Formats: sequence, C-alpha cells, structure tokens
Amino acid sequence: MLSAIYEMTGEIVPPDEEASRQALLRLNSLTKPPGSLGRLEALAVRLASISRTEKPLYNKRMVVVMAADHGVCCEGVSAFPQEVTLQMVDNFLHGGAAVNVLARHAGAEVKCVDIGMNGDVIHPDLLNVKVRFGTDNMAQGPAMSREEALQAVLAGIRVAKDAVASGTELLITGEMGIGNTTASSAVLCALEEILPETAVGRGTGIDDEGLKHKIAVVERALSINRPNPEDGLDVLSKVGGLEIAGLAGLILGAASCHVPVVLDGFISGAAALAARAIAPEASAYMIASHVSGEQGHRLLLERLGLEPLLDLGMRLGEGTGGVLCLHMIDAVCRIMREMATFESAGISGAEKESS
Amino acid sequence: MLSAIYEMTGEIVPPDEEASRQALLRLNSLTKPPGSLGRLEALAVRLASISRTEKPLYNKRMVVVMAADHGVCCEGVSAFPQEVTLQMVDNFLHGGAAVNVLARHAGAEVKCVDIGMNGDVIHPDLLNVKVRFGTDNMAQGPAMSREEALQAVLAGIRVAKDAVASGTELLITGEMGIGNTTASSAVLCALEEILPETAVGRGTGIDDEGLKHKIAVVERALSINRPNPEDGLDVLSKVGGLEIAGLAGLILGAASCHVPVVLDGFISGAAALAARAIAPEASAYMIASHVSGEQGHRLLLERLGLEPLLDLGMRLGEGTGGVLCLHMIDAVCRIMREMATFESAGISGAEKESS
Repeated sequence: MLSAIYEMTGEIVPPDEEASRQALLRLNSLTKPPGSLGRLEALAVRLASISRTEKPLYNKRMVVVMAADHGVCCEGVSAFPQEVTLQMVDNFLHGGAAVNVLARHAGAEVKCVDIGMNGDVIHPDLLNVKVRFGTDNMAQGPAMSREEALQAVLAGIRVAKDAVASGTELLITGEMGIGNTTASSAVLCALEEILPETAVGRGTGIDDEGLKHKIAVVERALSINRPNPEDGLDVLSKVGGLEIAGLAGLILGAASCHVPVVLDGFISGAAALAARAIAPEASAYMIASHVSGEQGHRLLLERLGLEPLLDLGMRLGEGTGGVLCLHMIDAVCRIMREMATFESAGISGAEKESS
Repeated sequence: MLSAIYEMTGEIVPPDEEASRQALLRLNSLTKPPGSLGRLEALAVRLASISRTEKPLYNKRMVVVMAADHGVCCEGVSAFPQEVTLQMVDNFLHGGAAVNVLARHAGAEVKCVDIGMNGDVIHPDLLNVKVRFGTDNMAQGPAMSREEALQAVLAGIRVAKDAVASGTELLITGEMGIGNTTASSAVLCALEEILPETAVGRGTGIDDEGLKHKIAVVERALSINRPNPEDGLDVLSKVGGLEIAGLAGLILGAASCHVPVVLDGFISGAAALAARAIAPEASAYMIASHVSGEQGHRLLLERLGLEPLLDLGMRLGEGTGGVLCLHMIDAVCRIMREMATFESAGISGAEKESS
C-alpha cells in the first residue's frame, strides 16, 4: 500500500554535500570570526545542501494549514470545544489569526486545507481535500482506516507538489484541529515507544486533572489499537489524525521536490516522525523552527535529530512558529549573498588558530 | 561627578503599568489560547509599558555601533590584531559587515561612532566623538581617567537623545573593539563580584591556553585597579572601555527618553550593568535580544534580570543579535494591532479554566 506513496514521491535523493562544503568555505571567508554566527551557520550549510546552491533564496513560500477534527474530543481532552476547529479556519480565511499576521509579516502565503473537518466551510480560498468528517474516537478503536490514512498522505503530497509546480520554494507546516495534541502524543508514543506520561502535555491549556485524564486516554488508545512502530501508516490510521497524515504527506512531497520544509510545533513534529517512518530520507529536508512549550516536543525533536531555531515557549500551533522563523532563514540567505569577505574588505585575519 | 550624567538624563521615570495591564487584557482577548505565544506575550507587555501604549510601533530604529580600542590588547588577549577595529569600522561604513546585512534586513539604520579608536577613519557617515586614542593597558593601571569615562558616558547619552530628537523610536546597542570581551569580563567581575574564571570566555576564538592567559590578565587588572562595585563610573574607568562607557550612556539616554533599548551581546551587557549601577531605573527600558555563545553572558543576563529572546550561539557582536531580534519585536507589534479577538471573529472560548 505504501507503493502508492512511493509512486508519487519517487526516490527521495539525499541533499547535495558539495553545496554544503561550498557554503562552509564561503562562511569562513566572510568578515567575522569563524563560527561566530552560531547556529545560523549550521542553518546556512543545511539550506545550501537542500537547495543545491551556496546562495539559496526563497522568494515564494507557503504555510499549509491542514485542518481536521478528532473523534477523541468526546473524551474531554481539550480545553476548547470541537466547533473551534471550523471557527478558527474561518478566522484563517479572513486573515485574523496569529498565523495570518505572522505570515504577512514574513511574506508567506497561507494555504488552508480542509482534509477532515467535522463540517463544511465554504470559501474560495479553502482547498477541499476532505477525506472524511473527522476521525473516530481512537480510545475505542482505530481513528480511521488504513485506506483513509493513505488518502490523507497522498493529498498532502499533492498539495506540496502543486505548490512547488506553481513556484513555491519553501514550505511550512501548519495545522488546526481541536484534540490534535492528544493524537500527536499518541503518534509520538507509538513510533518512538515512549510512555504517555512523558509525551502528553497540556495542549491549549488543560489543568492537572485534565492532564491526568488525557494521559489515560492516550494509554487506552495505544493499548486498544496496538499500532505497529515499524509502520508509519498503521500508526497514522490507528492513533493519528487526518491533518497529521496530510502534513506527513506534505513533508514527503516537499522532500521529493528538494524543497526545504519548515516544521512548526508538536503536531507538525508528529507528522514528521510519521513521514520519516515512511521514507527516512525525507528527514534531510526538515528544518525545525522552534521548540514549543508543549511537553514532549523537545524529546520529539531530539528523536528527529533536529535542533530548533527558536525557544520562546510558544504553544499555539497553526504554523506560527514556522512562519516566525522564516526571518532567520531569510537573514541567513542575505548573509551568504551580501556580506563582504576578508579579502574584498581588506581585513586582517586571526593571528592564532581559532578554537 | 555623576551629577553631570543626572543633569542630562533627568529623573528616569518607571514604565507605564497601566499600559502593560491593557496589553495583557488585549492579549487575552485575541483568538489564541491565553499565554500561547509564550515569551512573545511577555515582550508585548514590556514594550507596552515602555512605550506607554498597548499598541506600540517602531518605524524608525537605529543600531549604534560604538568603536574603540583597548590598551590591554598588548597582553595578547585576542585572536585578532588591534588594527581590525579600524578595518571593521571601514567595513561597516561600506555596508559589508554582518550588522549591515542584518540591519538592512530589519530596516534599521546603522550609526557608527568613533568614541576612542586608536587611529582615524574619515567618512561622512562616521560620527566622531573620540575621547582618546584607545585606553591604556588595564593590566598595568586604570584603562582611563574618571573624567574620560564620564565624557564617554555623556557622549553616549547625547547620541541617544539626538537620535530620539530626530525620530528614532527604538535603539539597539552595537560595538566594535578588538579586546573588548576582556574589558567586558572585567566589568562583569567588578560590578557583580564574580570570579574571572566564570566571567571570561573565548571572545573571537582563542584556544585553551589563550583563555587561561586572558583569565590571568583580568585577574591582574582587577587586583591592580580595585574598582569599586558600588560606583559604575569607577569600574568603567579602571577596567572598562570607551565603547562600553559610551553604550552605558546610550542606554541611560534611551531610558531617559522612554525609548526601548535592545541589548546585543556580552559587551552590550557589560555596558547595561554599568548603566544600571549609575541609574537603576534604566533597567526597565532594556530588552535582551539574545544570549551569546560567549561564556559569562548567560550569567550576566541573569544578573540583569533579563530573559533573552534568542539563543543561537552567536558570538559576533557588532549589534548583530540586536538587529536580528527586531523581527520578534515587529511581530509582536503586529500581533497586537492585527489579530482578531474572540468576539470579533465569533469564536467560542475555553470550556475549562486554562492552567
């Protein structure tokens, strides 16, 4: 069944190591002590390898906000009622949400995708790829069928490929779905064999009692469904969500097009884990924007082998951390293009070996 | 002698607590879970109180790069030769340094100030307020006289006041001065009674042996000069630097005009400690942009009671971290101005108390 995915992505090729070597050479020729831009330099090297040039540029970028609902909401795992998913998507479409403001600030397009909301929003800018009206309650059985999870992944790949075909040079993951930190925690637990008490956090803001209950719900979902940690699609279908599967597809699609994909927060991270389980080579195209305030996100990023750029205690999702960190990416691109070299500026180098 | 400073700054009034209350109310009315923008929300509240409005805006901003030389360089404390101070200022004036690139990216003006370089650069954009040609070697006696330190502080206050008078709404500290991490470490040790081995770092990149030597030099400077931790001007004159004193003045000047002053890295932090020693009320106007890779900077920020926005292992100085974080400040300003409220967007609130 995974063959349908591999047919769409083709073989995901590794990034270009020669471009990253060139980028490092250039960084060390610029008028600054070697390494003194810290993690921005590592970012420059990664972007160079992904985009196959020491001087990448991302003029056209898009944050894809996948929206879906979660049957597990009936267990009372969220501080907000399920109808907020639709209401917030309406807010996105009218430009009033945090992701809209931060995307405008970063010069990124916001693309809203209904991949499984429990109701319909009619708006010309909403892309409808709805697989079903929300998932089933994973605490009582699988969230969806394997076929539905596959459909969602394929839809995500298609969104990425279409975006790239129309000129998008960088993608950012975003999402909306009341209850989706619960599903993401379960995906993290299943794929990385982590205990729910480590993976489950407060989401939009539940209290101590709510947290205990949420942990119990995730434990139940895992023990009833027994997802196979070796099988990303199995995990997505049993304890995932439609937007999580869609984002996993988006990531796979971006990687297949050699386009960097900036991960937002915890839900995006769960999608990235699933994408990696399906195609490990996709990891090389992921950029971690930030580590959120959500419990489990730091551990998740460690498991992905990614160092986040920002650590601001954000826990809003939508793609907000992703678009906020675009500024760092743009800054790095300008550094590579615009800074003088020691030679061009006629500046003396270090007298001693730098440590 | 401090009276000359207080005459220029007047009484520095505390920020407006009512504006910060209004900002918090507004943040909690916006379409996001309360507190979910993490430290950006704390930043919004602080900016509101400093700028006395819940919706601040900083259209015109300036990074002031104070340049000076350090007699202590003859002790061999830096990886780069002293002539690099002049060469880098020339680079700043031609727009090729990291601070130029990042300032262009952030829409900030770069203002170069010669407050004590050991030579002259002639350029129409360079502001000349030179107090003397570099400091003396603090490992053998005071770096400068108390009168010279005062002159440098007053020059910094004047730069801030002139900038604000011509429309600047936010100031960023920047600096250039080979050897100035050594002087800044000594200032930190003197003002906060910290041991040199804790405060001294690798600067632009010295090796293990160089680090040991640099610690010994700072120890010598402190034991020969015995600066008085209660007297900011005494510390600046005995173990400081002309650009450090100038930046202390810039910070005092900004605070006296109710203008936020964004601190760059370790050297800016030492200047901020000195400014606080002279006028404790100035602290309320300081924003910490980032914690650098330089040893001692994290501790320094703790002592200032400031939480940095970025933690990218940068250690370049110039004002680079300061201008990089302007994007966060702008993002916060747009959030306060452009996001929809729960009421305006017709979105349901939380069902439970948020934790």
